[in-house]
Amino acid sequence: MEEGLRERKKRETKQRIADMAMGLFMTHGFEKVTVAEVARVADVSVNTVFNYFGTKEDLFYDRADEAEDLPSRVVRERRPGESVLEAFHRDYLESMEARDWRYGLNEGSDVFGRMVGESPTLTARMRELEVARMNTLAATLAEEFDADPDDMTPTVVAMQVLTTLTVLSRRSVRRLMAGESWAEILPWLREQAEAAFALLEKGIGSYGATTST
Amino acid sequence: MEEGLRERKKRETKQRIADMAMGLFMTHGFEKVTVAEVARVADVSVNTVFNYFGTKEDLFYDRADEAEDLPSRVVRERRPGESVLEAFHRDYLESMEARDWRYGLNEGSDVFGRMVGESPTLTARMRELEVARMNTLAATLAEEFDADPDDMTPTVVAMQVLTTLTVLSRRSVRRLMAGESWAEILPWLREQAEAAFALLEKGIGSYGATTST
Repeated sequence: MEEGLRERKKRETKQRIADMAMGLFMTHGFEKVTVAEVARVADVSVNTVFNYFGTKEDLFYDRADEAEDLPSRVVRERRPGESVLEAFHRDYLESMEARDWRYGLNEGSDVFGRMVGESPTLTARMRELEVARMNTLAATLAEEFDADPDDMTPTVVAMQVLTTLTVLSRRSVRRLMAGESWAEILPWLREQAEAAFALLEKGIGSYGATTST
Repeated sequence: MEEGLRERKKRETKQRIADMAMGLFMTHGFEKVTVAEVARVADVSVNTVFNYFGTKEDLFYDRADEAEDLPSRVVRERRPGESVLEAFHRDYLESMEARDWRYGLNEGSDVFGRMVGESPTLTARMRELEVARMNTLAATLAEEFDADPDDMTPTVVAMQVLTTLTVLSRRSVRRLMAGESWAEILPWLREQAEAAFALLEKGIGSYGATTST
């Protein structure tokens, strides 16, 4: 479907407001910036900001809808013959190459991470977004594989995949925040990602099994 | 180590305050009860309540320390030759037989679940407790199996086990809250638990693999 002129204008205005808000948040900290300041800098009315973004947190997480849907897209767009896990594995490796924002592997994800860590409001919202993303993925898996509503498998699979991806992101962003560069982090991350995907693929049945007593 | 008379008295006072607080919470709702009311009903001063419990939420989650340590205990006290997953599997089945509170399989876990669901403060604290429990288990695994600090495996394993157990608890409590009895829920839960532990054991490598295109 082609985007009309009006829709394009609206999308651009929304993007411009979000970009300028992020600039202010990065300079002054999330808590200190008011929506009125965002409106002034973006040269729109406060009402216009609230038309596009329900809350100040929405200005920060302006790609929340996209982020929530990303894992479901990986499943829906998996390649012929690919299992769900293979699709995620491929997507993660591609993202590592492209240094894409979707798994926090971009430049600047340390600034983002620090701002979230410093703001209880943003941390709480992040957790809500993670829960929403998990529920959305579980629903997508249930739909794709025609699961019974009483069957927990889609939820268990969604949680296992997403929590593992979250650990990979958090741990790598933590190293970035500690001052390492992506060039230093990536070789370690590749190794860790392979180990984590192997655990997902083959299970943790033998983890911590003692050979003798 | 034997418990002295003074320690026992303190422990009993703490338990009595928590029990009476829970009675008030269940009758009037968590948000409406004040610490002053808890103190009055337990016949102690407000200061005494705060000596034992730092916040009102701590009165509600009075077994938080024990709950945080439970998964680590399962690991530390695993039987000779048992893998980590086997220890959790056995512990879960034992808890299902005993209808123990540790996985929310007790009578009354619906009341508890409803109160948490209705209070944003209690929900937020529950999430914090889950994060603390995960970090504690990851640290225990790293210690038991002498993992390198850069190795994510203990964290990934801890998250996979705990999120799966959390799904099992939440889904069963949800059915209890919807009015079903444990007698109706348990046969389904047994089946779901076996499927979930099989996913943990053998991995999700084949989940959603298409046989042809």
